[in-house]
Amino acid sequence: MSYSDSLSKALDAAGACEGARIEAESGGRTYRGVLMPHHEFSSPDVLIIKIGSGYNVGVRMWPESKITVLDRPHEAHKKEDAVPVADGLPSISLIGTGGTIASYVDYRTGAVHPALSASDMVNAVPEIRDVANVSAKVLFSIFSENMNVEHWQKLAEAVAEEMNNGADAVIVPHGTDTMGYTAAALSFMLEGLTGPVVLVGAQRSSDRPSSDASSNLLAAARFCTAGHRAGVFVVMHDSLGDDSFAVHAGTRVRKMHTSRRDAFHSVNAPPVAHIDSSGTIEPHVPEKPAHGKVIVKNAMERNTVLLQYYPGMSPGLFDDIITRSKGIVISGSGLGHVNENMVPLIRKACDNGSVVVITSQCLSGSTNLNVYNTGRDMLSAGAISVGDMLPETAYVKLMWALANTRDVEEAKNLMKRPIRSDTGDRRTVDV
Amino acid sequence: MSYSDSLSKALDAAGACEGARIEAESGGRTYRGVLMPHHEFSSPDVLIIKIGSGYNVGVRMWPESKITVLDRPHEAHKKEDAVPVADGLPSISLIGTGGTIASYVDYRTGAVHPALSASDMVNAVPEIRDVANVSAKVLFSIFSENMNVEHWQKLAEAVAEEMNNGADAVIVPHGTDTMGYTAAALSFMLEGLTGPVVLVGAQRSSDRPSSDASSNLLAAARFCTAGHRAGVFVVMHDSLGDDSFAVHAGTRVRKMHTSRRDAFHSVNAPPVAHIDSSGTIEPHVPEKPAHGKVIVKNAMERNTVLLQYYPGMSPGLFDDIITRSKGIVISGSGLGHVNENMVPLIRKACDNGSVVVITSQCLSGSTNLNVYNTGRDMLSAGAISVGDMLPETAYVKLMWALANTRDVEEAKNLMKRPIRSDTGDRRTVDV
Repeated sequence: MSYSDSLSKALDAAGACEGARIEAESGGRTYRGVLMPHHEFSSPDVLIIKIGSGYNVGVRMWPESKITVLDRPHEAHKKEDAVPVADGLPSISLIGTGGTIASYVDYRTGAVHPALSASDMVNAVPEIRDVANVSAKVLFSIFSENMNVEHWQKLAEAVAEEMNNGADAVIVPHGTDTMGYTAAALSFMLEGLTGPVVLVGAQRSSDRPSSDASSNLLAAARFCTAGHRAGVFVVMHDSLGDDSFAVHAGTRVRKMHTSRRDAFHSVNAPPVAHIDSSGTIEPHVPEKPAHGKVIVKNAMERNTVLLQYYPGMSPGLFDDIITRSKGIVISGSGLGHVNENMVPLIRKACDNGSVVVITSQCLSGSTNLNVYNTGRDMLSAGAISVGDMLPETAYVKLMWALANTRDVEEAKNLMKRPIRSDTGDRRTVDV
Repeated sequence: MSYSDSLSKALDAAGACEGARIEAESGGRTYRGVLMPHHEFSSPDVLIIKIGSGYNVGVRMWPESKITVLDRPHEAHKKEDAVPVADGLPSISLIGTGGTIASYVDYRTGAVHPALSASDMVNAVPEIRDVANVSAKVLFSIFSENMNVEHWQKLAEAVAEEMNNGADAVIVPHGTDTMGYTAAALSFMLEGLTGPVVLVGAQRSSDRPSSDASSNLLAAARFCTAGHRAGVFVVMHDSLGDDSFAVHAGTRVRKMHTSRRDAFHSVNAPPVAHIDSSGTIEPHVPEKPAHGKVIVKNAMERNTVLLQYYPGMSPGLFDDIITRSKGIVISGSGLGHVNENMVPLIRKACDNGSVVVITSQCLSGSTNLNVYNTGRDMLSAGAISVGDMLPETAYVKLMWALANTRDVEEAKNLMKRPIRSDTGDRRTVDV
């Protein structure tokens, strides 16, 4: 948590404290910006400076480096958990879950750890206070690859509690790896939302020059306070610069690149809105009315699997999994096909009272099991297809449908019925 | 196979036979083009006419419809298995496997069946004879969702035989569903190719107005005869019109839409070339030298699986599959992650002498297990990652690597080494 002795002395001598605008000269370069909090994973000789572009840069300081204070910190820039309330601004509850957006690089190993508190995140983006009163809490501090079904359930409860306690909007900083799955889970679990629930992440950690953490968070806050729009959304960069952000429906969004800042895409639907760097919002789909009280329906049938079909897939090897599961989502090839040798296994599962849902590994476009004989055989074996729904969304929806309906037929009908914008395709209903 | 009595009589009265240029008036519209072969799945009252754009249209004829012959058929347009040889043109062997490109709609049920012979396909695209001497044979007649590892093995042998018997190029009409997997399989199985092996498909069947069968086939033939380029490629539409076709490397290509004509994309690499409607080829990557003789290495370790990681995936449920498999490809989240509760299972598989290969379900971008703790744990459990290689390509390559190396370490090294352009990422090699 602390600087090296020499850097501590240099900071003290310059009168530099967190939130101050400083100028640091090191290695022949000059950096100007706000001095950010130091943390346990920073090297003791590195200053984190938020420069004019909004990026945080890590500046390694040497004995000969210089620090000059340009401005004293504003009160609001100081690190604190109690955030002052401004009258007339909407209220946003921020529920931290971890992920790169809340993480720092460990300079000893080069690896990234979840570390930053929710209020640290808000304090790192002072502009957010111009648009909303933000209260922040940490629910989890995990990377999203470790997010599990019970995390979704707890998160849904926490979001509903904030909304029902008067929050106008909820922002959920979240790791990007499985953000799409969590967004789909919250979409189905939360009924009667009174405002936006926005998941937001970062592809680069907060103390890297190229971090998208602050700009994504600010864009999310601006979207939250722009109008009365209810639903679950993901806000992330829509370009490699900081000039455009996209708002995606929680059931339609997918991480399509391992590292780019514009990795998130709406699939089979346009983004809900775009936001530019000035905060101007261009909506693409109509706003939804808000309701009175948020109800949580977070029961999930854990006995559900997601399988990608591939040539050479052995029905024998997957017999046990398919027989033991109540819900099976298959991302088939093309319009939703599997090898004909898999069809008896689908029939067996359906005869057992399980639900087999067909999606496409193509991701874009709609499934249709009525075109080819293979598809017709799958339908007659009892499988259903769900139009242009993403495989991941179908997996989450199936867990939810199986746990929130009385019987398998009702669950199948719920799968085929478009809700929460999860499919826009009328062909969802197989004939 | 036959027309209705009334339509037969009308065709006879007009003197119309296959290959003739005719004009058909039906339902108030007039269609001009070449009369195509009738087949068992066509309605007895439907004429198939290849119109000027290259599309085949199905025209329903009524008793009051009119048929006029505009031109007698050229000899070459007649349906035949022996295709005349023109001196000086390169030779292309066409090996039919089935799929939409070789299929007809059954007008009774509306479903599509594989039916068209390889020579039917060539005869449907007379322009192909201007660029090459084409010999055609049918190896399979199946939809590609039913294509299996043994089909890949037989196909590799058939392609090598044609090449070693003097073919300058081989075209493989193939169903689109699993065309990417087959292209990857042929890429690895065929060593020392002396020319191009081009897989080509259609998203719309040959007797539909919007069929892309003929135009894709012609583009493939033009690419085959344009130069001395060795390798396995996929040629498909690159736009919704007939104005642009893309040539994809066999290890980089993926079907990314269930139905659009431009469904195929090169992922993490540019297409090898583009071809416009006039046949002009714009290459994007350097040509490869040709060798003397094609060698087939088509041994495959069938005991290999491809699994998509998802939140809620139960290690217990997948224990049996992972324990029983020699090769396991996981498409992880983000940079290639799985839940930490899956790591012991990865360790168990690696300790058993299996190979666990990590790819990303993001598809675009490169895996990197060195950034986050989760990834480092996976590496220390024995997993390897393979840069920006597609999950499907990694699955096919792993089957092949395990069957064509002496031990697991050699197989792992082969997985990490870029061959057949399967990855362009130097980070392939984990440290």
